[in-house]
Amino acid sequence: MPTFTPPVRDTLFVIEEILRLQDYAALPGFENVSPDIVRTIVEEAGKFTAEVLFPLNQSGDRQGCTRHEDGSVTTPEGFGEAYRAFCEAGWDSIAHPEEFGGQGMPQVLGFTVKEYVTIANQAFGMYPGLTGGAVAAILASGSDEQKATYLPRMISGEWSGTMNLTEPHCGTDLGLLRTKAEPQADGSYSVTGTKIFISAGEHDLTSNIIHLVLARIPGAPEGSKGISLFIVPKFVVNADGSLGARNGVSCGSIEEKMGIHANATCVMNYDGAKGWLIGEENRGLAAMFVMMNAARLGVGLQGLAQAEISYQNAVQYAQDRRQGRALSGPAEPQQSADPIFVHSDVRRMLMDAKAFTEGMRALILFGALQVDLARKAGSEAERQAADDLIGLLTPVIKGYGTDKGYDIATNMQQVYGGHGYIREWGMEQYVRDARIAMIYEGTNGVQAMDLAGRKLAANGGRAVRAFFKLVDDECAGVGESSPYADLAQRLAKANGELKAATMWFMGNAMTNRDNLGAGAHHYMHIAGLVALGLMWLRMARAAQAKLAAGDGDKALLEAKLVTARYYGERYLPDAGALRRKIEAGAASMIELPVEAFAR
Amino acid sequence: MPTFTPPVRDTLFVIEEILRLQDYAALPGFENVSPDIVRTIVEEAGKFTAEVLFPLNQSGDRQGCTRHEDGSVTTPEGFGEAYRAFCEAGWDSIAHPEEFGGQGMPQVLGFTVKEYVTIANQAFGMYPGLTGGAVAAILASGSDEQKATYLPRMISGEWSGTMNLTEPHCGTDLGLLRTKAEPQADGSYSVTGTKIFISAGEHDLTSNIIHLVLARIPGAPEGSKGISLFIVPKFVVNADGSLGARNGVSCGSIEEKMGIHANATCVMNYDGAKGWLIGEENRGLAAMFVMMNAARLGVGLQGLAQAEISYQNAVQYAQDRRQGRALSGPAEPQQSADPIFVHSDVRRMLMDAKAFTEGMRALILFGALQVDLARKAGSEAERQAADDLIGLLTPVIKGYGTDKGYDIATNMQQVYGGHGYIREWGMEQYVRDARIAMIYEGTNGVQAMDLAGRKLAANGGRAVRAFFKLVDDECAGVGESSPYADLAQRLAKANGELKAATMWFMGNAMTNRDNLGAGAHHYMHIAGLVALGLMWLRMARAAQAKLAAGDGDKALLEAKLVTARYYGERYLPDAGALRRKIEAGAASMIELPVEAFAR
Repeated sequence: MPTFTPPVRDTLFVIEEILRLQDYAALPGFENVSPDIVRTIVEEAGKFTAEVLFPLNQSGDRQGCTRHEDGSVTTPEGFGEAYRAFCEAGWDSIAHPEEFGGQGMPQVLGFTVKEYVTIANQAFGMYPGLTGGAVAAILASGSDEQKATYLPRMISGEWSGTMNLTEPHCGTDLGLLRTKAEPQADGSYSVTGTKIFISAGEHDLTSNIIHLVLARIPGAPEGSKGISLFIVPKFVVNADGSLGARNGVSCGSIEEKMGIHANATCVMNYDGAKGWLIGEENRGLAAMFVMMNAARLGVGLQGLAQAEISYQNAVQYAQDRRQGRALSGPAEPQQSADPIFVHSDVRRMLMDAKAFTEGMRALILFGALQVDLARKAGSEAERQAADDLIGLLTPVIKGYGTDKGYDIATNMQQVYGGHGYIREWGMEQYVRDARIAMIYEGTNGVQAMDLAGRKLAANGGRAVRAFFKLVDDECAGVGESSPYADLAQRLAKANGELKAATMWFMGNAMTNRDNLGAGAHHYMHIAGLVALGLMWLRMARAAQAKLAAGDGDKALLEAKLVTARYYGERYLPDAGALRRKIEAGAASMIELPVEAFAR
Repeated sequence: MPTFTPPVRDTLFVIEEILRLQDYAALPGFENVSPDIVRTIVEEAGKFTAEVLFPLNQSGDRQGCTRHEDGSVTTPEGFGEAYRAFCEAGWDSIAHPEEFGGQGMPQVLGFTVKEYVTIANQAFGMYPGLTGGAVAAILASGSDEQKATYLPRMISGEWSGTMNLTEPHCGTDLGLLRTKAEPQADGSYSVTGTKIFISAGEHDLTSNIIHLVLARIPGAPEGSKGISLFIVPKFVVNADGSLGARNGVSCGSIEEKMGIHANATCVMNYDGAKGWLIGEENRGLAAMFVMMNAARLGVGLQGLAQAEISYQNAVQYAQDRRQGRALSGPAEPQQSADPIFVHSDVRRMLMDAKAFTEGMRALILFGALQVDLARKAGSEAERQAADDLIGLLTPVIKGYGTDKGYDIATNMQQVYGGHGYIREWGMEQYVRDARIAMIYEGTNGVQAMDLAGRKLAANGGRAVRAFFKLVDDECAGVGESSPYADLAQRLAKANGELKAATMWFMGNAMTNRDNLGAGAHHYMHIAGLVALGLMWLRMARAAQAKLAAGDGDKALLEAKLVTARYYGERYLPDAGALRRKIEAGAASMIELPVEAFAR
């Protein structure tokens, strides 16, 4: 019953007018990406995801994955065929290196495709998504032989990948992990242990599954400094590249979950499985973090995606459903009632969603551009600036993006009234699917601490100072008569709240670290508000410039200006309240003993 | 796996120290309710709900209700037995009139029992909850004969009741309803039509189900002025009280929903069913609103209940689960990791939940006292003041209480990390169950308009002015050295924001009604913040007085003071941001045409 229209016009507006991808043609990988090619890719990605993946979203949720007695897992009907079509069309290899069979295009396009895939079918998107994370880790830390053995067939989609971090007693705190890897005479390791919550751990989409597994080598230091990363393929790969023996790894069970039913969340049992070290001994966490950072941006996309798909359907429902009359008088007096679109509270929720989805899309693609620039920009200074920025924005995109994406999906369900609670309408699935994104790849509390505790202080605060300046520069010189003057003022004020909160941490969190922890969540939310505000100001500026030039899609550009104003009026005021919460400090939050929480 | 500890100490603190029920002994129904009796009732209600109802919550969710081919519906295993025990113990008849077999006790106790039932098992609680609503409507509008025929067996629980409002094309806008009721020669009506989303519409708990049905009599005025209310029993009741013929009403299907699986949400088909008019022709909406108002407070309780049960379990999990170290250094160095309770972000979520649940419990019981006083207070002025207050607070309790209850349940699920997403841990059910409360009995958008559009203006703003004064009086005279001085200041400020928002509506919404609609949601949230703030100030004051007197449970009283401070610091700052959003007005919210929302 739900429908999906790929947000092609909006994506192209961001790529062409905000990122101005065409200006980077001198960089490697960008040279062949003409505006025409970008347009074709975006349109075709939209077509594929809407026609092939979206129709499987609701049925996939209902059917879920099935684990059989022999430990094999089947995905829902249609997933196998869709996956083959997906790989054949090359959708997942767009931004992977040409050296290993990828198409070597900018991450901006890679993320665009990922966004569409995730909007259409989040559970499906996780299969290639996890593979992409494993590819990133092997690219960064694997040996040449490992790269040659695994990457081409992972990038083609013939094999998939997973991330094996969590164990029953250890999630966030990986230092506690117990899975062990014993060196063997042939240079391999024998891996034994139990991993849980392994997304795409076992399934029927690919002929091999390449597990990336964190484990301890006997004698390694305790805690997080004694963890190494291993490649453990489901089927051992022979020297000639053919599949060899079934390895000692199996799926012990799959979880019954709130959502993402079509992705198998597995308990993986490693029982003397053959594994190969990636990178250096005891440097596994660092290698894994390459994967995590890519994955976190992908999870941020999930927040956007569930907000987008639920928004699109709520917009349609608000036009179809008739109840009551507009407050200002009947909008369609010839009908027995007005469409609920006329009701201001419905409009509030739709505008909130519009402002979030368009702002977040811009922010994520802006982030993707930084990933590109961090690798490919011409100067070391540019590369460092981009790396700083994406490092700072990653926890914001993941944490703020998924907190808010869930809120929006919940509100879009609300537009449906009682029908939103009924399965067949599809809206409740979006909420259930959106919920996981706040939890995995580091809970949003972990993201907040990554931002406030690590990213803020790194290199003497270089990244955050550059971000402040970016925002201030964007606000500066906006004339009072500009149609986005109000937004610029409000954004400068919100940026001021972010600076004040940063200063407050500097003054109060050095001596009392709890003051940092107590404010980190709120800080991440101010940062999210400001980052989206920056995007909205850029969008307003670009829209106004094009309108003044009489160029482009007038309706879309005018809508950008109104939505930018709305964003300033209805989102940015929260920054001040959040700052005041931070400045309250930790005292009343941590004062009570555990007994005081009992009933 | 989840557990439930009835919050007896907290309930008694509210009843004894905040409401001071003992001071009302002169009122009818209150005379026999000594502190000892209150204590016994609260403790026994806790025991019953924890031992009998709570163990069926998770299994009920898994199993759900089943509709059979003959249209009959069976509830999950154990529900029948639990329901009989519930009725035998008299739990549902506590606050019903003695004249019809009830126990005639204050609503404060009735709501306490309802809260515990709902915490233990929301889906179960809806069966007697709906009966209670139907009883309220018959009490208010039924004839003496109708009361005598139906009430005793509904109050005993032998029969249950339902509310039949919604039709496929009409939810909020009841003026559109089409079910018709044709007068018959014998004085009854023949009712024909389809009703949807009928909670507890068909089940196996009772021998008869008394449907209250809104329908149109031929020739009635169009719209909401032509709606009448009818009693349509599943089995017609003979003159001697025995059950007669099966009536022409049947359950056509039950909905697959996001949650509350153990409550049957039915499509009810009326096919020439025999019905009897309640109250006057064409005055059905007014009669139904009696039921709705009672039901809205009950739904507000659901927001509290899901927050409470998820809070209790998250507190326990935060002690059991060990990950990482406290920011201020290891709390339990002898262990391999600290309990996650030490992490400030976990503590933030737990404190948010503690502040909300305790504040909301106080507010709902305070509301229940107003229901009592509106009927039973000694003077007309007191009765009117109480009626004004509960009229004003009902949409706040329903709307703010369920918005926030859902947020809290979501946060408590977050405390569990990945385990929160897995069904067996039980936390995701609380989120799914909490979600419906924002939708039914009038969506929270409808509540916001009820508050800002109706309750505010009624009687020249008498109710809201009285509320402002109540808050100001509570804040006035709090000395600067008082341990709750900061809260009092912040509350006075938040009350100021509420007044300013009210003034803004007066100045800007008369000529442009959209300005009201655009701000109503935010207004409801400021009102919720201030109302809970009032409760927290009263709790802080009472706690401090008892501490000063060296009286009572010291740990509980000290925790009240800290939590009150936390509430002031971490909740009340939002009031200012919300006011600024209101003052932005409707323009940017409603300016865009529907086409601008398309992708």
